[in-house]
Amino acid sequence: MQVPNLKTALSGPMAEVERLILDNATAVERWFRLEWQEHTPPFYSSVDLRNSGFKIAPVDTNLYPGGFNNLSREMQPLAVQAAQSAIEKYCADAKSLLLIPENHTRNLFYLQNVARLQTILRQTGLEVRLGSLSPEVKAPTELTLPDGQSITVEPLVRNGDRLGLAGFDPCAILLNNDLSAGIPAILQNLSGQVLLPPLHAGWAVRRKSNHFHAYDEVVAKFAAEIGIDPWLINPFFGVCGQINFHERTGEECLKGNVESILPRIRAKYAEYGIKDEPFVIVKADAGTYGMGIMSVTSPDEVVGLNRKQRNKMAVGKEGLEVSEVIIQEGVHTIERVGGASAEPVVYMIDRFVVGSFYRVNTLRSPTENLNAPGAHFESLGFESAGATPVPEDDPETTHNRFYTYGVIARLAALAASYELEQTAPRAARG
Amino acid sequence: MQVPNLKTALSGPMAEVERLILDNATAVERWFRLEWQEHTPPFYSSVDLRNSGFKIAPVDTNLYPGGFNNLSREMQPLAVQAAQSAIEKYCADAKSLLLIPENHTRNLFYLQNVARLQTILRQTGLEVRLGSLSPEVKAPTELTLPDGQSITVEPLVRNGDRLGLAGFDPCAILLNNDLSAGIPAILQNLSGQVLLPPLHAGWAVRRKSNHFHAYDEVVAKFAAEIGIDPWLINPFFGVCGQINFHERTGEECLKGNVESILPRIRAKYAEYGIKDEPFVIVKADAGTYGMGIMSVTSPDEVVGLNRKQRNKMAVGKEGLEVSEVIIQEGVHTIERVGGASAEPVVYMIDRFVVGSFYRVNTLRSPTENLNAPGAHFESLGFESAGATPVPEDDPETTHNRFYTYGVIARLAALAASYELEQTAPRAARG
Repeated sequence: MQVPNLKTALSGPMAEVERLILDNATAVERWFRLEWQEHTPPFYSSVDLRNSGFKIAPVDTNLYPGGFNNLSREMQPLAVQAAQSAIEKYCADAKSLLLIPENHTRNLFYLQNVARLQTILRQTGLEVRLGSLSPEVKAPTELTLPDGQSITVEPLVRNGDRLGLAGFDPCAILLNNDLSAGIPAILQNLSGQVLLPPLHAGWAVRRKSNHFHAYDEVVAKFAAEIGIDPWLINPFFGVCGQINFHERTGEECLKGNVESILPRIRAKYAEYGIKDEPFVIVKADAGTYGMGIMSVTSPDEVVGLNRKQRNKMAVGKEGLEVSEVIIQEGVHTIERVGGASAEPVVYMIDRFVVGSFYRVNTLRSPTENLNAPGAHFESLGFESAGATPVPEDDPETTHNRFYTYGVIARLAALAASYELEQTAPRAARG
Repeated sequence: MQVPNLKTALSGPMAEVERLILDNATAVERWFRLEWQEHTPPFYSSVDLRNSGFKIAPVDTNLYPGGFNNLSREMQPLAVQAAQSAIEKYCADAKSLLLIPENHTRNLFYLQNVARLQTILRQTGLEVRLGSLSPEVKAPTELTLPDGQSITVEPLVRNGDRLGLAGFDPCAILLNNDLSAGIPAILQNLSGQVLLPPLHAGWAVRRKSNHFHAYDEVVAKFAAEIGIDPWLINPFFGVCGQINFHERTGEECLKGNVESILPRIRAKYAEYGIKDEPFVIVKADAGTYGMGIMSVTSPDEVVGLNRKQRNKMAVGKEGLEVSEVIIQEGVHTIERVGGASAEPVVYMIDRFVVGSFYRVNTLRSPTENLNAPGAHFESLGFESAGATPVPEDDPETTHNRFYTYGVIARLAALAASYELEQTAPRAARG
């Protein structure tokens, strides 16, 4: 088993929050069961977690997970089983599913993710074909992967209010494209087909701040249920909606948020006797891919940015201008793999944890964003699947650590459900 | 991985049936998905399979599986995930479940099964306690297992139309006791609680012949769907309802069935060019535990049984008289583990394959019942979980072999659903 050694020096409160979650595993699972009766889980999701030794929190919840290829092969049956549960919900009599990947067809790592996802979905008993939003894909195109497998991407065909491929009219459409560049017309006003996730989950519309507002709600309920301080699993955050890094407008809002959050973190650190230096992360409220992120320890650091810093912050994925920013309590990572900073990434399909791996970055410090050049992935063996707590054992054992990680990741997935309900276009609300 | 080498000398038709199932995996999974929409799967089940090299068939379908302890630890998350799906169906808001084990509290192997099952169910988020039907259990009794774990069995408490333990009123009751000795009054006329499996699944009521009639129906549909000869996955059988081995009545019926089945097997063997000698298995129509089973190659062997043979056949589990008998085409096993005859046992929870192990018997031949003294179990590693076919690979590879085994086992579980619907007491039918 490639399970990194997690027995790092843990301080008091960490053991406390993990112990409380483990001791209440029955109540925790029942609580989730009832929540999932009321809230439909995202079809799939991945959550980046940070464990600082006294706090475990999600820092990013991805609704278009792109690293299925990083999950260990042993996880495959669990993923297939979870996907079966999900598919039954949307189209039980389905024969076929259209998977729409990202356009970057030259990224072999990403294409391996697409191939793995296609395999998982096929094993649920669906014909799964790949349709591309890219105008460059004008005919079925076979792409060969490093392991010798190949996948075929085909041009999308819109037929009235249905979307498919030539000779292929699927029951469901699954996006693995996060729509950062906007919602293409070809995906709009479909009817009679299930589109997963819904369009407003794409980064053209989605905001991290909506997600973390929903996470606040989820954590408030959960923390009350099992009796923990919500802060132990939830970072403080604030939002600025009108930033223009190039024109230096909105800096006061940024500074004000940093000024407000740092003392709140300090008070919590004092309460728990934590000696670390508080820091906050400033990042785009829309979009992902680890772009435009800075880590600051003082309000002064966000005013008077130099040209290089401003350029870095101003541009998100697909070259889009960043104008909305989230300011979030930083959670440093105590996880190390081979001496390098690491953070667990937990994968879910429907309401089930189906796997996990570490994002490792040899070039970054424990207080920095690791989703950056230098990152690589270490897959974890099966006992890390997150479903099997053994309350009698120490919280530090790998299976218990991963149970806790699985709980926090599922809280983030549940928050995504709340978020998508709350941000749904009026007509779509139940 | 403890995966026994399955690359035994296979003859033509075997590869053909496996290849057809693998090539049609998408259609197979969709077919199951639609069937499970119409038919509720048993809460759990285990199926003994025989693979003769040209035929793969279920020979026993157990609705009270007693070997969860024989599944590899790696399977646990898959079992928990499947149990979560099942529990949600019956009582989503459940906090508690009562598990009723067999009475033989001195069988440490069996108690390990109970412990494992309790662990799986607890991990779904339920408080799980053990209630005993045994009159000897008068107070909570702690039983220590060989691995140092312990379980506590408690006396059942009937309170009006509800069943529980002292201070414990469960939402659901799960039987791991096959009710061979009859249906105890304490289990009758419960209301407002889910009882799983239903009482008519117990061996006091259940008949193997009803199961195999239902299996005939299931196989007819399935074989038509993927275009195979049903015989390749289904053994011929007949029934005698009025046998008294002690008084030598009913021998003519037995003989007649053997005379009818052997030529039908011979014809099929000729069709497929199989050189083996046909044989039939005679066994009690009710009950399990491998008691009262004989393997015969000629009708003469079932008439004029000597006293020893008659005594052996006449007594089933709990010392009950055997009067109904099923006569079934024998399927020899080509599976070997360490040179000994072996047969795969596939475990399911709800509609999911959650694990598998081999029953190995060093004292028995490939044409005999292996569920007999001398049997032991070899657990299988994770790739055997049965959910992950790779059609590009040879059918002989272990993951493909186990996919096929998982399909046949699920056909038997589906037959159990049909059977329980067809044999339900009038008031319970939908």
